[in-house]
Amino acid sequence: MPRTLAEELASKQREISVAEFFERNRQILGFDNPLRALLTTVKEGVDNALDACEEARVLPDVLVEIAKAGPDRLQVTVTDNGPGILKREVPNVFGRLLYGSRFHANRQSRGQQGIGISAAVLYAGLTTARPAHVISKVREEEAAHVLDLLLDTQKNLPKVVADDLLLWDRESGTSISLVLKAKYQRGRQSPYEYLRGSAIVNPHARLVLVEPDGTRITYERASTEIPPVPKEVPPHPYGLELGELAYRLKLPGPKTLGEFLAKQFAGVSSRAASEIVGKAGLTGKEAPGSVQGERLEALLAAMHEVKLLPPSAESLSPIGPVLIKRGLRNVLGEVRPEFYAPPVSRPPKVRGGFPFLVEVGLVYGGGLPADQPIQLLRFANRVPLLFQQGACAITTAVQTLDWRRYGLEQKGGAGLPIGPALLLVHLASAKVPFTSEAKEAVAEDPEIDRELTLALQVAARHLKTHLARRNRRAFAQEKFDIILKILPKLATKTSDLVGKPVPDLTPVITRIMDVVNLEEKVEATPEGVRLDAEITNYTPRARVLELFVELPAELFPLGRFEPAPDGTDAELGRAWWTLEKLPPSGRTKVSATFPAKTELEASDPSWFVAGVDEGHLLGAEPLPGDWDVRLPRAVIEAAEAGLEAPPAGAEAEVDYDAAETSARSEDDE
Amino acid sequence: MPRTLAEELASKQREISVAEFFERNRQILGFDNPLRALLTTVKEGVDNALDACEEARVLPDVLVEIAKAGPDRLQVTVTDNGPGILKREVPNVFGRLLYGSRFHANRQSRGQQGIGISAAVLYAGLTTARPAHVISKVREEEAAHVLDLLLDTQKNLPKVVADDLLLWDRESGTSISLVLKAKYQRGRQSPYEYLRGSAIVNPHARLVLVEPDGTRITYERASTEIPPVPKEVPPHPYGLELGELAYRLKLPGPKTLGEFLAKQFAGVSSRAASEIVGKAGLTGKEAPGSVQGERLEALLAAMHEVKLLPPSAESLSPIGPVLIKRGLRNVLGEVRPEFYAPPVSRPPKVRGGFPFLVEVGLVYGGGLPADQPIQLLRFANRVPLLFQQGACAITTAVQTLDWRRYGLEQKGGAGLPIGPALLLVHLASAKVPFTSEAKEAVAEDPEIDRELTLALQVAARHLKTHLARRNRRAFAQEKFDIILKILPKLATKTSDLVGKPVPDLTPVITRIMDVVNLEEKVEATPEGVRLDAEITNYTPRARVLELFVELPAELFPLGRFEPAPDGTDAELGRAWWTLEKLPPSGRTKVSATFPAKTELEASDPSWFVAGVDEGHLLGAEPLPGDWDVRLPRAVIEAAEAGLEAPPAGAEAEVDYDAAETSARSEDDE
Repeated sequence: MPRTLAEELASKQREISVAEFFERNRQILGFDNPLRALLTTVKEGVDNALDACEEARVLPDVLVEIAKAGPDRLQVTVTDNGPGILKREVPNVFGRLLYGSRFHANRQSRGQQGIGISAAVLYAGLTTARPAHVISKVREEEAAHVLDLLLDTQKNLPKVVADDLLLWDRESGTSISLVLKAKYQRGRQSPYEYLRGSAIVNPHARLVLVEPDGTRITYERASTEIPPVPKEVPPHPYGLELGELAYRLKLPGPKTLGEFLAKQFAGVSSRAASEIVGKAGLTGKEAPGSVQGERLEALLAAMHEVKLLPPSAESLSPIGPVLIKRGLRNVLGEVRPEFYAPPVSRPPKVRGGFPFLVEVGLVYGGGLPADQPIQLLRFANRVPLLFQQGACAITTAVQTLDWRRYGLEQKGGAGLPIGPALLLVHLASAKVPFTSEAKEAVAEDPEIDRELTLALQVAARHLKTHLARRNRRAFAQEKFDIILKILPKLATKTSDLVGKPVPDLTPVITRIMDVVNLEEKVEATPEGVRLDAEITNYTPRARVLELFVELPAELFPLGRFEPAPDGTDAELGRAWWTLEKLPPSGRTKVSATFPAKTELEASDPSWFVAGVDEGHLLGAEPLPGDWDVRLPRAVIEAAEAGLEAPPAGAEAEVDYDAAETSARSEDDE
Repeated sequence: MPRTLAEELASKQREISVAEFFERNRQILGFDNPLRALLTTVKEGVDNALDACEEARVLPDVLVEIAKAGPDRLQVTVTDNGPGILKREVPNVFGRLLYGSRFHANRQSRGQQGIGISAAVLYAGLTTARPAHVISKVREEEAAHVLDLLLDTQKNLPKVVADDLLLWDRESGTSISLVLKAKYQRGRQSPYEYLRGSAIVNPHARLVLVEPDGTRITYERASTEIPPVPKEVPPHPYGLELGELAYRLKLPGPKTLGEFLAKQFAGVSSRAASEIVGKAGLTGKEAPGSVQGERLEALLAAMHEVKLLPPSAESLSPIGPVLIKRGLRNVLGEVRPEFYAPPVSRPPKVRGGFPFLVEVGLVYGGGLPADQPIQLLRFANRVPLLFQQGACAITTAVQTLDWRRYGLEQKGGAGLPIGPALLLVHLASAKVPFTSEAKEAVAEDPEIDRELTLALQVAARHLKTHLARRNRRAFAQEKFDIILKILPKLATKTSDLVGKPVPDLTPVITRIMDVVNLEEKVEATPEGVRLDAEITNYTPRARVLELFVELPAELFPLGRFEPAPDGTDAELGRAWWTLEKLPPSGRTKVSATFPAKTELEASDPSWFVAGVDEGHLLGAEPLPGDWDVRLPRAVIEAAEAGLEAPPAGAEAEVDYDAAETSARSEDDE
């Protein structure tokens, strides 16, 4: 009997194994060509190693060896000093897609999907038919287990093909070795770049890469602080969807709705829980599973309306301003940038129930190329993102900002700006919305975009201030240079003409410049790093000035100031002085000495001066209105009482007319 | 007893349901915001409807209704006239991820993943907790089944919550209705655009969209030809990986290696199979499952080395040049472009064992904006791609081509070119490598990129020829205009001065222009569409010219030519004439009449002329060297025998010197 069409079509319906799906769509996992397959394999191995070490509170020591294994094949081995994996878990961890320990944990981690390393095993098997070779030892056992395994794509299950024991010379750790169709090449999207990027954002890790030609590259630890393990936190009600709430209400556990609200969500105090049930017209005594239909919708609406505690950052592991700067200094090695903007670390926000935060570092000048688009380093959960830059929300946020407003060139006010700058952007979240399983680009999202833009704006404003200061300084310097070059010539010529001795020019310079000038210097001395600010009163009257400095808060306590400040605010990294009275052409100095090797950049201190208006101030900013400093008024008043008019004789000594005539004739020479 | 660290870590290892995975990573499926979620839902519904209709050989009639269902909710209903789905399959088809009929079929289809529509059901449940409402009727049953179902994310299994029967007023078909958090908005990435795009590449479908405000938009069928159902074909050995081969060797079926090779692969004849086993040092009598290790590698190497038949295009369903053009005309409605490049349909190639092909359409001028980047319409397997343009290999291929070489503006020779052009690019494959499950961008791949570039180059060359022709014509026209304006003035003035009658100017024009000019015209007449080519001999000698025309092959047989051509090649759409001898200033005409409504564009015919060298030819091209036309030499020779020198008296009638002087004095007026 011939089957009907509907029967025939129905007979073709089949379940698709997730491994079959990804075998066929390996590009989704980042295995579409030999170069990218290598990078993805190294990345999954290293990410797992770093996650494991951090969970075990061990300073990571990760070795990546890449060796030739045939004309178009490489052997990749990643070995770590983590806690190791129990033998019974090894097959599933390495030979089964969608299996892992971090997917259900609501906290920041590198691997979240339970796909990565098993995908590499799948790809290796697919391209070379060779099993993964895994060695793993836990502290409690004498010997390491050695397993060779493949991934059975039909069943999405591991298939162990060899099982042995090994005396391994380490207390604990894991090593995975794969032979795959791959290609090694240094460059923008290589394992070399990947490890370099990883070193930037994981300064506590020691990473070693052995390239196929035997070259060994070591990224030494720049910090011995293991970042705290982010805590697992329940989801925050903001961004929670109806279906998710319905599902959670039905999970076993809390007996009443009130208990459910207070225990199953972050940010909900018991007071907030009462407020929520009140707003929803409920009592709080209901069995959670009984809340359905309109009551369910009212409950969710109330959860979104009631003001809750902000999400805690405990589930996140930001890099932090200090280490961002240290990381950038690491990668920029020989470039010697002229400016490190104070790194931006935004407070955590919530998106779809999960906290996230954005960090931005910006570096300018030095040896960075001036005529090319800025370099953008993207990171998600401390992992460098090397592919799919064009498809990433981080790139979009950078390209959408009008950088022309901040002093960089940008065609039409959109796209990557042009200039000698490097941007580091880090998104940390318990749930990073990647555009695909290859985890190479962040999906567009209005909340993330908002935070990215805010963080970029802060960094860009720092850049703008720096560029404005630099330009003003350059302008003033030019003025100085001209005056100091021409005036003596003028004076000599004039003196020759009138047969008088050359006069002292300082008062004239003072009169022409009419500014208070601050010149700062950072230098390494035998006692440590010294920071100097020299203030010269190039105005024609005596001045009582107040000087203020702001330093990165973590550096501030290390400084010994000379003279001692009249006031400090260590928390904000600020100090201030009321300076001795400065006569015209008078000069004074304030210094701070830091221990040797303090990472103090010329751009770290910000100087502010009060006592002279903005138009007559060079090399420092006027004091911003929001500084709450308790000024020793008495001192100032006493000092101001003795102020004198400019010395009357100062200008009589040079005949300006003669000087000007002479200047004109000089022009014609 | 406290557990060890390794034990504790192991205890957290868990299987992750694929539905949980996608619930948490819904952005990967295209559900990250209300606008995109709506588009993805409509897209999955429509794609399934079109696939089902084509499989059942029915002209698709698809209704998409979008209605408000709350402040931030919409109800989306997609109804088709397909074959329907057996009741027992309905829950799995709509309520289970990675379940479907097209994943394992090696042929082009819109849905390939078995994820799409179930993902929409998942998202709807997640955001509104409302089940999907499915109606389906197969021809063999009296009533339609009505099922309400949800997707259980823990188990990735459907959960039927209501089950009923309905007397439905159609023979067969399926309707799915979802209530989801979504937002309707017309624009570049809207359901409106999606259906418009679908109509372009599926001219056999009737698509109706009802917008939330009740507006009803209908895309009528422009063709009643159902595209052939692509055939399932086995994979082609080119691009086959070792692991895949090993896996296939172990599948039950063929008894010997020879049989395995000849039956399980496309392109392998039994002769090629023998050659392969020979090259691999095997006999062909081996049991397929016994080939392992080095013998396996030798076998694969031989399969890649031996010359095989190219992949057949049977598993593909290209749109084809005729329908690409019709589709473009559809979407460009009021724009009236000046030029439709002949659509490019590349032959199929193989990538990873699966055939694919690339098609390109290009349109220029008319009302298309001239100062903006060109419009790029991307399609994969007859589905419009609206998101992720920047991440798509199609975009990269367009941006990498140096369009300046083909007459378009392009900053720095990279990026989308600027100009009044629209590009349609279609990639058809049994396995399109999408960058994610949302199927919005094609992953980078060297083989696909090569084909894209080749196809784009062909289209771009047509554009270049058109622009060059247009420019030459414009130049000649300008010259004509000047001559026709100034000469009579000159002649009148000169005649007045010398007191003689105004002479006939044609010979002078002839002498100045010294060209053979072809002027073509397309116009609608009562009898149909008429194509005219008028040839004027503006050279000072008599000429025997040959005229050649090339038309789209599908239009050619419809034309009635006047006079009858001296030769034709219907397959290539070519006709040619040896024209009567044309004296200087002589003129003749060739016409072709097509039935009314023939889609003949002014840019369709290409005209070629032999008998005058390129420098003296306007409005046509010289005959390309590769035309294999059997010219009636005897006729030409006979004609040429009677050629005369230019008439001697032609130039005596005007005093050139006087005319030039007069022209100069005119300038001063």
